[in-house]
Amino acid sequence: MPNRPVLDFWFEFASTYSYLSAMRIEEMAEAAGVSVRWRPFLLGPIFAAQGWTTSPFNLYPAKGRYMWRDLHRLATKRNLPLRKPDPFPQNSLVAARVALAGREAGWTPGFTRALYLLSFGEGKSIADEAVLTAALKSRGLDATAALATSRSEEIKGRLKAETELAKSLGIFGAPAFVTPDGELFWGDDRLEDALEWTVSGGG
Amino acid sequence: MPNRPVLDFWFEFASTYSYLSAMRIEEMAEAAGVSVRWRPFLLGPIFAAQGWTTSPFNLYPAKGRYMWRDLHRLATKRNLPLRKPDPFPQNSLVAARVALAGREAGWTPGFTRALYLLSFGEGKSIADEAVLTAALKSRGLDATAALATSRSEEIKGRLKAETELAKSLGIFGAPAFVTPDGELFWGDDRLEDALEWTVSGGG
Repeated sequence: MPNRPVLDFWFEFASTYSYLSAMRIEEMAEAAGVSVRWRPFLLGPIFAAQGWTTSPFNLYPAKGRYMWRDLHRLATKRNLPLRKPDPFPQNSLVAARVALAGREAGWTPGFTRALYLLSFGEGKSIADEAVLTAALKSRGLDATAALATSRSEEIKGRLKAETELAKSLGIFGAPAFVTPDGELFWGDDRLEDALEWTVSGGG
Repeated sequence: MPNRPVLDFWFEFASTYSYLSAMRIEEMAEAAGVSVRWRPFLLGPIFAAQGWTTSPFNLYPAKGRYMWRDLHRLATKRNLPLRKPDPFPQNSLVAARVALAGREAGWTPGFTRALYLLSFGEGKSIADEAVLTAALKSRGLDATAALATSRSEEIKGRLKAETELAKSLGIFGAPAFVTPDGELFWGDDRLEDALEWTVSGGG
């Protein structure tokens, strides 16, 4: 696939709308002739910097109620399973590290989809090592090795750097999409626009 | 137009995305066979109840920068003029009262579009009586009479009641759309879904 433009897909494992995008981005990108770079990061530090200690969907109950209803409607339309994990939001630190550990070997996308289906599809906890292991094994991966790599200083540092980069790109929520020319799109409902921009090379 | 389903369109004159919806909802609703009830309300009291003293786009600068960029992209795509009013957000109290004053006579939609074009299209202040007058006159209306009605206790009370109703419906932002069976959709990017729901009578 030479010379395919690359769209950066910034996602957070605790983010409901990131789940929606993770489940459809590869098929849509393929149809558009675009490659996707899967970039897990943490919203926690970005939220904390603006004074939030939890998800805005918890801080603002009306917004939270609406979000779950909206998500239910969209999941139904797309035939995706949906079950709210408890607690919400989940602690996504280890999950993001594991996803980053698969970048070179190329298993980040498959692992990510498998883990999203366990968390937002079945309500399981992504902070639970058994759940991470199940997601890895479902992709035929060596879970013990992957978890060991995720605990390395290199991966820990890489996740911090990625989150810092996300912040410096102006990312304040997830999912976010950044085109080759640096255009930022926020939210699952901007995925079509982000792909169109990537292909046409701008507005 | 007998038996047409009615979609409630809740909008706020200080809201950028309400501008986008106001400029396209009638045409889209007509195509879908839906009637639109234009319902101006105030986000200020709803934001204040959750501790916000200004627009979230001002409170959270990264989100604000993104919103203006996103709005610019969408306005370009839809051939809509765009100019940021100063200050932002505008005080929309009088504008909302004037819009409500036109409900019985049926000029609320036309006045609303005219005022949005002056504010977000030309950057003019909607708190300025001369701008309100210009919007009214551009629709062939008696501006003096309309402004006098907007100052009546009846209209003042009606706007308060509408804003309370919006809050009780779970509305936390604008634009919002409420279907005949009470389904709430938030944001210009949910207008298509709201119309589809209105026509099909549910999920």
